[in-house]
Amino acid sequence: MRATILAIGDEIVHGLTTDTNSGFVAARLREAGVEVVGGFGVTDDVDRIVRALERALADAELVVATGGLGPTSDDLTTAAVARLTDRPLALDAASLGAIEERFRAIGREMSPNNRKQAEFPAGSTVLANPVGTAPGFVTPVERDGQTRHVVCMPGVPHEMRRMLDEQLLPWLRAQAGARRFATRVFSTFGLGEAQLDELLAGAFESDVRVAFRAAFPKVQARLSVSGEDAAALESRLDTLEAVLRERLGDHVYAAGDEDLAETVGRLLHARRLTLAVAESCTGGLIGDRITDVPGSSEYFLLGVVAYSNDAKQALLDVPDAVLAEHGAVSIETAEAMAEGVRRRAGTALGVATTGIAGPEGGTDEKPVGTVCIALAWDGGRWSRRYQLGARDRSWVKRMTAQIALDRVRRYVLSDVHPDEESNDG
Amino acid sequence: MRATILAIGDEIVHGLTTDTNSGFVAARLREAGVEVVGGFGVTDDVDRIVRALERALADAELVVATGGLGPTSDDLTTAAVARLTDRPLALDAASLGAIEERFRAIGREMSPNNRKQAEFPAGSTVLANPVGTAPGFVTPVERDGQTRHVVCMPGVPHEMRRMLDEQLLPWLRAQAGARRFATRVFSTFGLGEAQLDELLAGAFESDVRVAFRAAFPKVQARLSVSGEDAAALESRLDTLEAVLRERLGDHVYAAGDEDLAETVGRLLHARRLTLAVAESCTGGLIGDRITDVPGSSEYFLLGVVAYSNDAKQALLDVPDAVLAEHGAVSIETAEAMAEGVRRRAGTALGVATTGIAGPEGGTDEKPVGTVCIALAWDGGRWSRRYQLGARDRSWVKRMTAQIALDRVRRYVLSDVHPDEESNDG
Repeated sequence: MRATILAIGDEIVHGLTTDTNSGFVAARLREAGVEVVGGFGVTDDVDRIVRALERALADAELVVATGGLGPTSDDLTTAAVARLTDRPLALDAASLGAIEERFRAIGREMSPNNRKQAEFPAGSTVLANPVGTAPGFVTPVERDGQTRHVVCMPGVPHEMRRMLDEQLLPWLRAQAGARRFATRVFSTFGLGEAQLDELLAGAFESDVRVAFRAAFPKVQARLSVSGEDAAALESRLDTLEAVLRERLGDHVYAAGDEDLAETVGRLLHARRLTLAVAESCTGGLIGDRITDVPGSSEYFLLGVVAYSNDAKQALLDVPDAVLAEHGAVSIETAEAMAEGVRRRAGTALGVATTGIAGPEGGTDEKPVGTVCIALAWDGGRWSRRYQLGARDRSWVKRMTAQIALDRVRRYVLSDVHPDEESNDG
Repeated sequence: MRATILAIGDEIVHGLTTDTNSGFVAARLREAGVEVVGGFGVTDDVDRIVRALERALADAELVVATGGLGPTSDDLTTAAVARLTDRPLALDAASLGAIEERFRAIGREMSPNNRKQAEFPAGSTVLANPVGTAPGFVTPVERDGQTRHVVCMPGVPHEMRRMLDEQLLPWLRAQAGARRFATRVFSTFGLGEAQLDELLAGAFESDVRVAFRAAFPKVQARLSVSGEDAAALESRLDTLEAVLRERLGDHVYAAGDEDLAETVGRLLHARRLTLAVAESCTGGLIGDRITDVPGSSEYFLLGVVAYSNDAKQALLDVPDAVLAEHGAVSIETAEAMAEGVRRRAGTALGVATTGIAGPEGGTDEKPVGTVCIALAWDGGRWSRRYQLGARDRSWVKRMTAQIALDRVRRYVLSDVHPDEESNDG
């Protein structure tokens, strides 16, 4: 079964409210095996709603509309469906009783306007609203010698969500054939969409849908398959995942849509490692991302944003000689910062960033976008200089933070330093 | 002129990503005097995109599409517009050069797949992308004896927004003829949209368009007027701005869409004051925001993210007795942190945050959302405890950082401490 989704309301089309309903409905329908082929936003105008319904029905056997079921004069969805299907409006006594009861319960009198919320195109199936006044409904429509359906639900998200889960989905399952969709998402870092696409070329059968989404600084890869048996779909996704992981290697840092700071947190927690961060060019961004993760206080003990040389010396014990000889943006300074913050905090790991985020401060030798990242642990260190290019300041900060977090991830995952890990664990 | 908006991408139609682009485009187009009559969401499928474009063109003279301009095989927008308009694809050498240059700058090789991002339906006007690889374009289409236009922009929100503001809106104005729109935006903090609306009730003539947009944690107020003479519009906006500022007082922190950290930076720079930050619950977010501002190294010397009590003692000199008696989340600890970081860094001002961002860690006395903020300067301090409520962790962090920055702004603006300012200046 194919479905098209309609979001009805001036506030949505005019950009005053973000339409979260359509996405929610789409995701739920897909889980139920319905193919969602498109969506429309339409203003509070009967002619336009009728036209949008016509178009939606041309594409799909099921049209799900949200919004426009309120009591006021700009709520026109029911009228539009009645006109589209050429069915008169009929009062549903049970719905009217429920609406009156809601008002009674909160000690208010029902306005005459609310009466229209109990009227539906004749022949509709009513979807009760346990948490609001506006019931929804399903109206059959004949098209192309086939019975198609228009579903209308209220636009208030929490009312719509309950109605969808408790009434529409059971109704659909009763109608539907057995076909369902299953999707798996992977978060990656280090390669662009085009490179991922090339690495996966020819990896999958033609019915496997592969999609990429860049959400800087990460890129998501998504695999979708369809079939009739839920367990078989999951087991097929397991096989596809193995192929994807083999092709993309450790560029995949997580299954699912996960921030790299979460992945790093999980790994540190699992190995009982602690972390301190010394930031110069990233200015606090790494600490901010790490502390966005609930429970991060367990493994994140200290961050120092040492923007000035004085601060690098006084709080991170970077030797004067290192700063004088190599400058603040150097792998030597980065290493001293990482080791300094690790000692001060008494953590297993220290990570440091120093660089030129721009737009000022670049030189011929160290242009804007020059960044040094270092990692220090008990008995060892790692460092590297990067040329990220003269991008905007925020881009340089975000990319540097991501590389630094990825380096922590790769360190914790690697088997190169088993001694340090077990000593610290 | 009427416009229809298209959001292209499986992830949007299937509900995996919320479409914020369409609303943003709609709001901006309306400010520019364009009537937005509807929107479509469409999957990554050439036939469906062509059909959606056909329908969109039937309703409106202008169709604005976002998404599907990436380098991979599921990016099909350009191909769909070429088929719709029956125009061959033509390589734009300037765009190809710009894409190659972007890759060169970050030291990566351009994938052959990216080449298609420099191809456009012949006769299109290219919209350059200063912050990403995918340029946009405007393609003319003949319909009903009239030249209509399809505009395609990338789906990455920050790329799309810059392209819209810097290139599409000027293009539209050039099309629109003599009548022009002038808009002025104000950034505010401390009141909600409804409160701002009330304070401005009756303030302006009926032709003045007043709109609010919550972009947490700030709220923007936007005044728009239209007329034929640019100079007269600007002078009218000056008058309107004076009225708005009188009504909203120091809740307006900047004219324009400015981050509060930029405002604070401007003020510190102008008074030659320096700042250090001690963060506990904000985890580095304040430092991150301050250092997003170019030139911030001039006034921002040090940040310490003291997540553990040990770090508060060792790096910020918070006395054991204060922590033992009042706890880590207290105005006493916040004051000691602010004073400690100020002394360590030798700055004019120190600001500190400590609180319970949740979801764990709350108690009856100090529930999740309890936050203490302090400011310290030579010879004085200010502190306050806030109950922000048990919102999600990221919300508590962002609100706390905003209040702390706003407190710095108010301190620097006030005339209460002229001695400290001139001493430090």
